[in-house]
Amino acid sequence: MIIFGVDPGFGILGYGVLKVEGNIVEHVAHGVIETEKDLQMSLRLKILYENLVKLFEKYKPKELAVEKLFFFRNVTTAISVGEARGVVLLLAAQKNIEVFEYTPHEVKKAITGSGKATKKDVQRMVKMFLNLKEIPKPDDAADALAIAWCHALARNIRRLGV
Amino acid sequence: MIIFGVDPGFGILGYGVLKVEGNIVEHVAHGVIETEKDLQMSLRLKILYENLVKLFEKYKPKELAVEKLFFFRNVTTAISVGEARGVVLLLAAQKNIEVFEYTPHEVKKAITGSGKATKKDVQRMVKMFLNLKEIPKPDDAADALAIAWCHALARNIRRLGV
Repeated sequence: MIIFGVDPGFGILGYGVLKVEGNIVEHVAHGVIETEKDLQMSLRLKILYENLVKLFEKYKPKELAVEKLFFFRNVTTAISVGEARGVVLLLAAQKNIEVFEYTPHEVKKAITGSGKATKKDVQRMVKMFLNLKEIPKPDDAADALAIAWCHALARNIRRLGV
Repeated sequence: MIIFGVDPGFGILGYGVLKVEGNIVEHVAHGVIETEKDLQMSLRLKILYENLVKLFEKYKPKELAVEKLFFFRNVTTAISVGEARGVVLLLAAQKNIEVFEYTPHEVKKAITGSGKATKKDVQRMVKMFLNLKEIPKPDDAADALAIAWCHALARNIRRLGV
């Protein structure tokens, strides 16, 4: 079963792909989709959509994990990130991929045991547990893997009924 | 030439359709797309998308006008409205419909001459100039017509080089 984690953004959208079989979680892929600053937002969203379609066709995810966002420096950024997030959620629904949402606090807590962990703490744990040679880069891809992994842990907990 | 105005929202999305020939602006249609509260956001976005596809096929708009949003009571609402807005912008790009954005202040100013006009002032002007029997209902549809009409005025000003 493939989980597709997303760190939504309109300039750079991070993704992380994990394979889950029972308790075993394996790293499959991670990366980013980038869009050019000088393009109109509608075209940037179209580029995100088209690249996500290709990734979904390649990895055939059954479940999608995405961050639930609450804090932004300003409303304009919140709306723009919402627009990118809307494209991700729409495509998930169109492809019958179930969507799961986690707050940044839930992601940190699931992966490090502490809701106060830093971004670097989370990245080190992701690297260690997924047997990666290096911390995934850029941060957007590492964050997407962390969200995917948080969901893998959460669904195992649900499955075991702990 | 058909202009499609949108007042974006995830629970209720308003639209207004106008036909523009030179200086003549005619009302074609207005209405709303509604989605159920208890559905997951990804499914609500899919419903918005599917209904917009049908409306675009019916009215064949060449240009889309949408409000540029800056103020929200909270970030969660801003993100959710952004998600609905993302679906609208994505579909516009997919259908090669050019997108134009106007702030609420620009819409008020274009329609009533004053950026301080109330929502009711704008609605009354829309009713009068589009020869409607009543103020369009609900507000979301009236707002969408106002945005479409603001764009019709703005493009005529650009066309005439005033």
